[in-house]
Amino acid sequence: MRPLITLTTDFGQQDEFVGAMKGVILSLCPAATLIDISHDIRPQDRKHAALILQASCPYFPPKTIHVAVVDPGVGTQRRIIALEKNDRVFLAPDNGILSPFMDDDCTIYHVTNKTFFLDPVSATFHGRDIFAPVAAHIANGTPLQDFGPLIDVHDLIKLHMPQVKITTDCLTGYIIDIDRFGNLITNITLKDIKAFSAGNLEDITTQIRQKQIHGISTSYGYARQGAAVALFGSRNLLEIAVNQGNAANLFNAHINDEVILTSHS
Amino acid sequence: MRPLITLTTDFGQQDEFVGAMKGVILSLCPAATLIDISHDIRPQDRKHAALILQASCPYFPPKTIHVAVVDPGVGTQRRIIALEKNDRVFLAPDNGILSPFMDDDCTIYHVTNKTFFLDPVSATFHGRDIFAPVAAHIANGTPLQDFGPLIDVHDLIKLHMPQVKITTDCLTGYIIDIDRFGNLITNITLKDIKAFSAGNLEDITTQIRQKQIHGISTSYGYARQGAAVALFGSRNLLEIAVNQGNAANLFNAHINDEVILTSHS
Amino acid sequence: MRPLITLTTDFGQQDEFVGAMKGVILSLCPAATLIDISHDIRPQDRKHAALILQASCPYFPPKTIHVAVVDPGVGTQRRIIALEKNDRVFLAPDNGILSPFMDDDCTIYHVTNKTFFLDPVSATFHGRDIFAPVAAHIANGTPLQDFGPLIDVHDLIKLHMPQVKITTDCLTGYIIDIDRFGNLITNITLKDIKAFSAGNLEDITTQIRQKQIHGISTSYGYARQGAAVALFGSRNLLEIAVNQGNAANLFNAHINDEVILTSHS
Repeated sequence: MRPLITLTTDFGQQDEFVGAMKGVILSLCPAATLIDISHDIRPQDRKHAALILQASCPYFPPKTIHVAVVDPGVGTQRRIIALEKNDRVFLAPDNGILSPFMDDDCTIYHVTNKTFFLDPVSATFHGRDIFAPVAAHIANGTPLQDFGPLIDVHDLIKLHMPQVKITTDCLTGYIIDIDRFGNLITNITLKDIKAFSAGNLEDITTQIRQKQIHGISTSYGYARQGAAVALFGSRNLLEIAVNQGNAANLFNAHINDEVILTSHS
Repeated sequence: MRPLITLTTDFGQQDEFVGAMKGVILSLCPAATLIDISHDIRPQDRKHAALILQASCPYFPPKTIHVAVVDPGVGTQRRIIALEKNDRVFLAPDNGILSPFMDDDCTIYHVTNKTFFLDPVSATFHGRDIFAPVAAHIANGTPLQDFGPLIDVHDLIKLHMPQVKITTDCLTGYIIDIDRFGNLITNITLKDIKAFSAGNLEDITTQIRQKQIHGISTSYGYARQGAAVALFGSRNLLEIAVNQGNAANLFNAHINDEVILTSHS
Repeated sequence: MRPLITLTTDFGQQDEFVGAMKGVILSLCPAATLIDISHDIRPQDRKHAALILQASCPYFPPKTIHVAVVDPGVGTQRRIIALEKNDRVFLAPDNGILSPFMDDDCTIYHVTNKTFFLDPVSATFHGRDIFAPVAAHIANGTPLQDFGPLIDVHDLIKLHMPQVKITTDCLTGYIIDIDRFGNLITNITLKDIKAFSAGNLEDITTQIRQKQIHGISTSYGYARQGAAVALFGSRNLLEIAVNQGNAANLFNAHINDEVILTSHS
């Protein structure tokens, strides 16, 4: 079986950054299959990185090595970690981007062994000089404990993700992402809505920037063209979409905007 | 021989969509080689998808599986089809994006067999939940008839592509695409021009947005810098280009703009 | 060992160009591993191409075939060359984009043998019709001399890259690139600075667009958020960066802007 390595960065695709990382990996592990998850994470946006990793990594097979480099602290004393969970390995800076995968089932190593780094290591591009060669050595079968000491999961930096608030009158959530189509992804789960209201999903009204959407639908496509719909999307989160349109533009909505649900049942 | 699967979508490269599809494919068919044709099809633009598929797929080897997901009807009753032609398979929604490949040499199956889908199937992301696993199973050798019943090619939705009009005075075509360099791609073929005028290509004048280009050239590079040229491009269609410049900006031209040819011979 | 081919172009990722090239390569050499370095070279910007190649190719293993198509002269009599150096092959137009690799250790062939081209060859897309099939044949082991005659390195077109000027008062360099993060990459090396001043790096002041940065740092991360720093980046060139910000925006800086260093020691 050829080793599978995924890459998630905020490096964009214009510069040489991603190519240089791949060159380093393939120099050390020529058999690796390299898959790009995204290189267009918003620059230095750790929450965006965490969301994209959470939404994609579970679809990869066991043994996959996921490398994530969104790293505003590059060149400082921030740690680099290898997190093993369910037979996958995640390699990332210790800055919270692996928050979705942190729990008591993880084993985490502090990557410190310079034997596995390029020499010299630049101050600004650890993706090429540390992450890439370490990923290749993991793919080649080097045991994780060879890279450095164990760390307790509770010692890791964890992102503070916005939480849903529920009162008797309303449920308040937030837009946490806006996708390529302008769909507004909230942090509201079906479980949240069930905890708020025992009624039907058709009786829920979703309010975003003073505008209201009645009912929660099952698909974009059944709304008339240009109409806004609220529905559960592929991340199992409530999304606001516009059939064949762009909800972010229509509502002039932004990440962190409030979304308020009320029930009429 | 490792199976070859291409991907063409309007998913962009910022979100997790493409990565999740690849994870699903490689989970089921680890030996697959995955090639991105484009993920920057203009959102929900079926004609753009059809043009890009038409211009690229013929260059891939036999046995290639081409997956195309530009799918404004996702989650509705629109069909998913597997179209087999010349030893290639095209997997796409039945919304016309495979129009360039439809003829009496096709064999088409309606993909309905949920055995080959992820479970559950989301309402909004069939790329991950249906297209990806079905493509992997095709790559693994599952016969197409196992995915669902045959459909007649005449039952498929076909795109209405703009047609060239020829009178004794002029030939009227349309801009059907604008490429990365700002080149204006028309729907006019050399055969169209021959049907319009028996004269030389140097005697043809191309008019776009009230401006005229005299003659049809053989290359961008022989025009002076900044000059507009009309020539037959790599899709065998008449293009309007500016040597080392951007024709779309120079002419303020858009898709669907008229292009009028006259002959002085 | 599977042959490794990298691609560097200004084709963007919206159109079919890159996909068509990959289809041609895999049709002829199904075992090839294809790696994208960048397809977002600024359109027809040969200096940008040269910089990106210089910064990435050294990280790839021996035997790699690097294909670079930034080719404003496509369809004219400009030559196509295969340059062999240190057990790597570079395939590109003879327009200077391989300048970083030109020296007396190169062996260069003029690629003229149409046996290895697609037939017909279009006027506008030699990436697909010449570069891709030639790269595949090189990957398959065809000796370079089979593609055409030897050329002397001094006969090649070479880019004029901006040079650092040193006086007793100051060192003047130029911004030669701006990366995805807005970091300003200059053409100034540590060697240049040592030639200018025997003092400490902390005593160097960097001036860009009438603003001054005191000292040369070792990392982005140790500056306070929003502060500008000068430091040596991953290309071993002096960069101006803003910690968790965008230096290009902050300074309203552009490629070719002057950067002036003075010393207070």
